[in-house]
Amino acid sequence: MTENPQYSEKMQQLVNLFAELADLGGISALMEWDQQVYMPRGGAEERGQQSALIGKLMHEKLTSDEVGKLIADLEAEVGDLNADTDEARMVKVTKRRYEKQTKVPLDQLMAFIQATTLAHEAWVEAKNKSDFSIFQPHLQKIVDMRIEYARLFAPYDHIYDPLLDDFEPGMKTADVRQIFDALRPQQVELLQAIAEKEPPDNSFIRQYYKEDFQEIVGRYVISRFGYDWNRGRLDVTMHPFTTKFGQGDVRITTRYLKDDGGSALFSTMHEAGHAMYEQGIAAKYRRHPLGGTASLAIHESQSRLWENLVGRSREFWTFFFPSMQMLFPEYLGNLSMEDFYRGINKVEPSLVRVEADEATYNMHIMLRLEIEMGLMEGSLAVKDLPEIWNSKMQDYLGVTPPNDALGVLQDVHWSGGMIGYFPTYALGNLASVQLWEKMVAENPNIPDEIAQGKFDTILGWMNEHIHQYGAKYEPQELMVKATGSKLSPEPYIHYLKTKYGEIYGL
Amino acid sequence: MTENPQYSEKMQQLVNLFAELADLGGISALMEWDQQVYMPRGGAEERGQQSALIGKLMHEKLTSDEVGKLIADLEAEVGDLNADTDEARMVKVTKRRYEKQTKVPLDQLMAFIQATTLAHEAWVEAKNKSDFSIFQPHLQKIVDMRIEYARLFAPYDHIYDPLLDDFEPGMKTADVRQIFDALRPQQVELLQAIAEKEPPDNSFIRQYYKEDFQEIVGRYVISRFGYDWNRGRLDVTMHPFTTKFGQGDVRITTRYLKDDGGSALFSTMHEAGHAMYEQGIAAKYRRHPLGGTASLAIHESQSRLWENLVGRSREFWTFFFPSMQMLFPEYLGNLSMEDFYRGINKVEPSLVRVEADEATYNMHIMLRLEIEMGLMEGSLAVKDLPEIWNSKMQDYLGVTPPNDALGVLQDVHWSGGMIGYFPTYALGNLASVQLWEKMVAENPNIPDEIAQGKFDTILGWMNEHIHQYGAKYEPQELMVKATGSKLSPEPYIHYLKTKYGEIYGL
Repeated sequence: MTENPQYSEKMQQLVNLFAELADLGGISALMEWDQQVYMPRGGAEERGQQSALIGKLMHEKLTSDEVGKLIADLEAEVGDLNADTDEARMVKVTKRRYEKQTKVPLDQLMAFIQATTLAHEAWVEAKNKSDFSIFQPHLQKIVDMRIEYARLFAPYDHIYDPLLDDFEPGMKTADVRQIFDALRPQQVELLQAIAEKEPPDNSFIRQYYKEDFQEIVGRYVISRFGYDWNRGRLDVTMHPFTTKFGQGDVRITTRYLKDDGGSALFSTMHEAGHAMYEQGIAAKYRRHPLGGTASLAIHESQSRLWENLVGRSREFWTFFFPSMQMLFPEYLGNLSMEDFYRGINKVEPSLVRVEADEATYNMHIMLRLEIEMGLMEGSLAVKDLPEIWNSKMQDYLGVTPPNDALGVLQDVHWSGGMIGYFPTYALGNLASVQLWEKMVAENPNIPDEIAQGKFDTILGWMNEHIHQYGAKYEPQELMVKATGSKLSPEPYIHYLKTKYGEIYGL
Repeated sequence: MTENPQYSEKMQQLVNLFAELADLGGISALMEWDQQVYMPRGGAEERGQQSALIGKLMHEKLTSDEVGKLIADLEAEVGDLNADTDEARMVKVTKRRYEKQTKVPLDQLMAFIQATTLAHEAWVEAKNKSDFSIFQPHLQKIVDMRIEYARLFAPYDHIYDPLLDDFEPGMKTADVRQIFDALRPQQVELLQAIAEKEPPDNSFIRQYYKEDFQEIVGRYVISRFGYDWNRGRLDVTMHPFTTKFGQGDVRITTRYLKDDGGSALFSTMHEAGHAMYEQGIAAKYRRHPLGGTASLAIHESQSRLWENLVGRSREFWTFFFPSMQMLFPEYLGNLSMEDFYRGINKVEPSLVRVEADEATYNMHIMLRLEIEMGLMEGSLAVKDLPEIWNSKMQDYLGVTPPNDALGVLQDVHWSGGMIGYFPTYALGNLASVQLWEKMVAENPNIPDEIAQGKFDTILGWMNEHIHQYGAKYEPQELMVKATGSKLSPEPYIHYLKTKYGEIYGL
């Protein structure tokens, strides 16, 4: 663990405790990674027991009275928890974690974990059979349990606040609503304008691209971005993800689709963005109370930035398109870079969030937020969800799912009890552009550098303004420090209008 | 964990405790496996801390006074620890583990672990530079610490006994000596007779065989043996090994050499033999005090049986040689099966144990046992080891290492503090043949079945007589149960003389 001679004896105790929690967290992540990547089927039962044991050990370690006493003593020692010192923030961050964990009775926590395990199985079956009724009683139970959970944190302005706060510290439902209310009419207007134009052709990318060549491209691109292979690796899983076993080992995964030659590349850039955030946390926060990250939205800002603002930009393809042509001449040999750029940026209202383009993505999120708030408020009934989902899809995107598998059952999140998570995806999109604008204003050379395959100014700026701080600042504080203002929808709207206005000639 | 309604309340407590220990052991094995197979360099520091934490948790869990009290109560409850009931054996096995673990002061244990970590690093460097002097002070320290450790278990007949007992429960130095004394002259005589004959040609196997085809063969062969892929997988590492995360997940590794087309196949059969033992333990012993195995020698009997008695037999190649010819026509297309069989069974006194053939292998082990006993007795000095090693190699095998890397520094074991381990390799060879003879006497069809590619009689017999019992019986008890007598050198000597007498026309 970090031994800092400046820490008081009690502060060092806190550091030591959270070093062990970090170790257990890393072990837990390794078990989950192995389960997704390499574990044979027969390993599931014992792996489940091993994971539960580590979870129990973490819970016991974090919620002991001794820890509460230590944090209380340290709170008195450091004074103002919002002061800008590491010590004040260590107490603030650990106090938050301690209080969240201790507020939930162990029985309730265990019952919730069990319910989500069963709900996940039911969701897999329901999705396979496209039959919401299989999932419905489980989702009902999860909603009931989340309401019970949220109430532990009363008083609040909105019952959705405690859930949101789990993923986005300090963010309120009212803030998200305000942002989304500003966003919605502008995105709808943009989509209507786009719908009237001739769409670009993207058939060249909806093809079978050889997996080994896709892998070469993915590895090459993120190597240039600055992903550190000494502290990570890339594997293949059903669903791409990033995981961290320690600051020295941040792994990513991707998947290769048979009918889409772009999916793996963009997902690899996306996950590398997440991973470079973790790899960029200051070394002094290794196995440390501040060794986390600010929030999911800030995390998503990093993945989205590399995937979209870099990876779907004209400058990026100015540099990389020749390499792609070399590996895939059968699809790209006679294509112009401009047609390639327009094709990979085609706007297509679609049924499935994870396949959505930049212009439609947030609509999928808004729909989910409205549903989640309705469920928590009690104004929506679980049994009505398929109908509500389909009607909102028609309103927002002009498409109606042909079945529930492509509709209300498409996402895994609710089956895992993760209500309050979705908004962070949209907030991450906004944050990515807000950070980007500030960074480019300070470094106007960045687009030219991208066109030359250089990314160190970008990674360096993000390291300096975001990554290094780990979990020290709350997301809005970090946005203010980095950009001068809190998270706002304006830069994102401006970005979408400019980019797609140009592509579609609006 | 196993919930058995027949267990008393206290017995169930014991089962629950050892279920958690099994979980921690499985987690520890996963961390080690990942480190060998997939971990990026940068992950080493945090992985070391994570492993140490799990080790500490296991030690604390096993050595608490509460556990001692529980075992003492259960000892009174079950009575005779040598009775043939699961309950009696659960108490016996856990008592043994508890006493071994508690007898060692925690400071001494930690100092030993630290010394072996440093010694391992020094050994790697010493071997790379072929310079024993780099390793010498570390080995001296390890020998001193092992003497100190052995003395904790006084009184004993021989100071080597406690070390041997760690790997081979119940086995005494005198037993091993007696066995080796019977073995040595017979093996020397056989080797002398072989040396006078024209050796078969094995140049066809000392070639580059395509790795992907080697992998196909390895997977095919162990699939037919009965290795359960639902509960395991095969990966590539520097040194082949078997590891177990739970009864549902027993993984093996292999390596592909550039200049030897047989090494990976035989090592894959070997590791599959180890793995099928673990996979064959009765399901009721999952996460259970008896969920281990009898000993290292019994373990090695299973790996050696599949590698040598099956894998290097004429019957095996009667079935598999055509497949090998198909994949490697450039080396095998014009070779007869008989020349192939003789070639892969060529006897060559060699410098390195892990490359030794069946006829010379045990000589390597006898040499090591004499050195280890001398070090523990104090009759040999660490500084003289290179000279002693080389002189014994000349005596036993007629070869002298050109340097220490190929001599006294070749094996990793001593750097890890594992003194007392080597004899189990030779005992495993003996046990493999003793079990084989009994099995074939009961099932005379087995050679014919092998020639038809059928192995279920073999695996079924081993499941029934060895695997299912887990750690219930000590190795000698198990040999008596399975074969009617304790471990004896006679079957092995008879096997070697018959097999090599026929190949070499003695």
